[in-house]
Amino acid sequence: MVWIHCFIFFTSIKPLFGSRERHYKLEVEYMFWAPDCIERPVIAVNGQLPAPTIRARAGDTMVIEVANKLYTDGISIHWHGIRQRGTPWADGSSSITQCPIKPGETFVYRFKVDKPGTFMYHGHHGLHRTDGLYGFLIVDVAEGKKEPFHYDGELNLFLTDWWHRTAHEQQIMLSAKPLRWVGEPQSLLINGKGQYNCTLAPGYATSNSSSPPCKFKGHEQCAPTILNVLPNKTYRIRVVSSTGLGSENLVIANHTMTVVEADGNYVEPFTVDNLDVHTGESYSVLISTDQNPNENYWVSVGVIARKSTVPPALTILNYLPNSAWKLPTSPPPRHPNWDDLDHNKNFRKSILALKGTPKPPGKAHRRIVLLNTENFVDGYIKWSVSNVSLVLPSTPYLGAIKYGLKHAFDQRPPPDNFASDYDIMKMAPNKNATRGNGVHVLDFNTTVDFILQNANTIDPNVSGSHPWHMHGHDFWVVGFGEGKFSEKDVKKFNLKNPPLRNSAVVFSYGWTALRFVADNPGVWIFHCHLEHHLIMGMGVVFSVGVERLPELPPEGLACGLTAEFLMRRKHT
Amino acid sequence: MVWIHCFIFFTSIKPLFGSRERHYKLEVEYMFWAPDCIERPVIAVNGQLPAPTIRARAGDTMVIEVANKLYTDGISIHWHGIRQRGTPWADGSSSITQCPIKPGETFVYRFKVDKPGTFMYHGHHGLHRTDGLYGFLIVDVAEGKKEPFHYDGELNLFLTDWWHRTAHEQQIMLSAKPLRWVGEPQSLLINGKGQYNCTLAPGYATSNSSSPPCKFKGHEQCAPTILNVLPNKTYRIRVVSSTGLGSENLVIANHTMTVVEADGNYVEPFTVDNLDVHTGESYSVLISTDQNPNENYWVSVGVIARKSTVPPALTILNYLPNSAWKLPTSPPPRHPNWDDLDHNKNFRKSILALKGTPKPPGKAHRRIVLLNTENFVDGYIKWSVSNVSLVLPSTPYLGAIKYGLKHAFDQRPPPDNFASDYDIMKMAPNKNATRGNGVHVLDFNTTVDFILQNANTIDPNVSGSHPWHMHGHDFWVVGFGEGKFSEKDVKKFNLKNPPLRNSAVVFSYGWTALRFVADNPGVWIFHCHLEHHLIMGMGVVFSVGVERLPELPPEGLACGLTAEFLMRRKHT
Repeated sequence: MVWIHCFIFFTSIKPLFGSRERHYKLEVEYMFWAPDCIERPVIAVNGQLPAPTIRARAGDTMVIEVANKLYTDGISIHWHGIRQRGTPWADGSSSITQCPIKPGETFVYRFKVDKPGTFMYHGHHGLHRTDGLYGFLIVDVAEGKKEPFHYDGELNLFLTDWWHRTAHEQQIMLSAKPLRWVGEPQSLLINGKGQYNCTLAPGYATSNSSSPPCKFKGHEQCAPTILNVLPNKTYRIRVVSSTGLGSENLVIANHTMTVVEADGNYVEPFTVDNLDVHTGESYSVLISTDQNPNENYWVSVGVIARKSTVPPALTILNYLPNSAWKLPTSPPPRHPNWDDLDHNKNFRKSILALKGTPKPPGKAHRRIVLLNTENFVDGYIKWSVSNVSLVLPSTPYLGAIKYGLKHAFDQRPPPDNFASDYDIMKMAPNKNATRGNGVHVLDFNTTVDFILQNANTIDPNVSGSHPWHMHGHDFWVVGFGEGKFSEKDVKKFNLKNPPLRNSAVVFSYGWTALRFVADNPGVWIFHCHLEHHLIMGMGVVFSVGVERLPELPPEGLACGLTAEFLMRRKHT
Repeated sequence: MVWIHCFIFFTSIKPLFGSRERHYKLEVEYMFWAPDCIERPVIAVNGQLPAPTIRARAGDTMVIEVANKLYTDGISIHWHGIRQRGTPWADGSSSITQCPIKPGETFVYRFKVDKPGTFMYHGHHGLHRTDGLYGFLIVDVAEGKKEPFHYDGELNLFLTDWWHRTAHEQQIMLSAKPLRWVGEPQSLLINGKGQYNCTLAPGYATSNSSSPPCKFKGHEQCAPTILNVLPNKTYRIRVVSSTGLGSENLVIANHTMTVVEADGNYVEPFTVDNLDVHTGESYSVLISTDQNPNENYWVSVGVIARKSTVPPALTILNYLPNSAWKLPTSPPPRHPNWDDLDHNKNFRKSILALKGTPKPPGKAHRRIVLLNTENFVDGYIKWSVSNVSLVLPSTPYLGAIKYGLKHAFDQRPPPDNFASDYDIMKMAPNKNATRGNGVHVLDFNTTVDFILQNANTIDPNVSGSHPWHMHGHDFWVVGFGEGKFSEKDVKKFNLKNPPLRNSAVVFSYGWTALRFVADNPGVWIFHCHLEHHLIMGMGVVFSVGVERLPELPPEGLACGLTAEFLMRRKHT
């Protein structure tokens, strides 16, 4: 047997009303690699980090075989931003919609990409994103359709952070008592490439000048992906972030960016000097290559919304026919200060749905307030949502609910609100925090508001930002504000042109309000997309009309109580 | 939820003809620990490394719940030396008799311990032994019965080797192309305790004198388990080895040892100055505490049969009421030279079955010769058996064979012999080596000879020793010799009093002949017990009368094609 690292892509199998099946095969395996010039084992897909870009057209059906070639670890792959309407078992979130794919096994994800946009796919089991298990999933407009903006070429930027410790070790650390904190990432990566602790060139110090020179121009695994452009053109840059801990800011020196898409939905175009990208988010921006064509320009990505020691990641916007290795004459551009929340909030306020985007219903049937706190639970440090730290069960909810397996998870649903006297400005009192895995049962086709309420952590005067991501649905971000959410804030909701998204950030000591229609039967996780926070419990699970689903494909259910149920049902 | 690290042990539930059920619960989880004074994540059982000792009486039925509390890794536990007569699904070898136990799940092993002896249990999935997943399993004689020797007290020594890299990283290294060799272990451990790179005391240098002092007397996690004895008594010392790479030699300064048991079978008593213990083997030796009672004595374990850089592990035989911390006045004893094969072979020759042990049949129905070579297979370095490097399938053989799932593994059995012109003294020519997972199908109740044939590795003038271990059966070691096995060697087989064992070593450039009766229906692995060699392909799988087995319990089959078969059979 030889493992062939090829990226198998069959084009059209059965054209069907203009759409078609797209077949991909992804082999997930360990590989030694040096994303930031320091080698360690990583999780590669078809021999690549990041995983290869998957591309389709709106309306296509994806048939993606994922082979787990790790040795003892399960995996699952989430198709981030794809709503999986009618195929909730293909969402790829382990414990929620499927069992982890076992080593040596192949799981086939089959789902429809029903709208164009910039999406991604990534591991959704353990901390596998931290090992590099992520890639672009780009859906072009259906044949014959046009984007509502023009561009001459396309560039893609996948933003992540990187540790020298493996996900395996980090997971053990984060689960230890006392907690062993993994610390800040060692590097930031752009398209899986970064530079650890090096000096770029005189005048360009990224870290400190006593460090060795950066391997910027070579053919090393860490040498940056140069962005080649022609002068006087318009480029669409697709940007996604799948960082584990931080949020990021992108600057392209001398170039403004016009934001046109967020999370696979068009937005009213607006122009910025720099772009905030929280983990789980995607954007498309347009740039004009209208600067001095004899120069190249820095592309820099730095941390925001978190005090971090990690220096920015750099690459080069290379105006052809200049040499790719012609360094810009100016030093790398600066980012907003990490704690410049006003900048961050102003950017958010600029994001509004493009005219013609569906509007939210005027009223919600139900409101669920999710208090984000850090707590001690039995001496372990955990993140909690309304005092419950999510511990994922070993049986996937989707099967457990469909088959009525009540021992699979806590049958008591988590609370819809938190104590009215909770002071979000003070350290978490840790009174009632507990572990749990109950489910918010949402009535089919009802309108639900989720209010993310931030609070102080277990440290005095600290409250971070949390970028939450929802599976199975897009939502409208109808508002955000400071302090504790209250009834009067409802009146200020933007119901006219709020952006439709799948990810939204809640700022420190603030709240963010999301409205959505629970119209996609299945079981879905809604969670902080900081991978280290999710693993420490920061998420909730909700179900929608599972009784409306047909018989589930058994392939994803061969674990826990669903395996027992399905293997024995002949005899029962 | 709180993980309680308690060792739950219910005594007699149902006395049944003098035997009873023994209930144990083992929680397998990661823990930070410093077995050799250097901390790393380890796999602990009920919060302990080594795992707690399990004890029963011959005839008892063991009911052992194993809970996998790792995060993304499967596990399985093998009850090493227990033949599992009538319960082949409880053997605990992943891919052979069961699927790995998935994270968050509990698997119940239920089996009978039908004879007294010194056994062990350990992980049998990936390289989990290398992470510390092992413990004693001791079966005392049935109530009212007596051992054929007398002793006043009992001491247990569990011998292992230890790396600072985790099993997770080592498995990735060993599977890489080119191979990344893990190197020699950093330390040897006695009962899970060793001392990395330290100076014991002036005159006692174990490594080099520029190293820091050993933490020998303290309460550190690495401080040795002191062996407390009273003067003028007889002690039974049970010794097992589960090393990953090396074989070991035990010396107790000033004390001879009388060997009385090997692998759960009594042997004709003989006395030695030092004891060779290959991985997978167990011994009981008797010592008399007849030395100067005012002194303590070194217990030393060093590497044999492999050129290794790792210094011996030490502990103290503490004659009470001396202080445990009273260091012996003499320096630690010396071990035989690592390459003293004559010593090693002479020891083997001394091991003969106790009178009354069943004798082997006079003739075998079938002979299978297993050539042990190191090969390049598609550019990977692998160990092979008769040119086939074993790659375990993702569906357990036991279920695959029982249900006739022919796609689960290679249907072509591996060869019964190797090319007659193969020169075992030369480097492996790597002509036809391949990966595979076919099965030797043995007819029920037939007598089979396995001839282990050693050969040169891929390096010139190198041929190591390989300690092979068989599941499901004991065998008689009917002979061993130098060079290539030939028909004339059969005449020299010892059929009178060969030792009955479950493990046997094949020496460099030599052969070892084993005879057994294939009378235990099931599927069994027979493999080099060096964990790093097994993972690189050095093993074979054989089946015996699977058609005689009743319906298999489905719990262990929820993976691969057996899961698919069992979950869909209602509809087929």
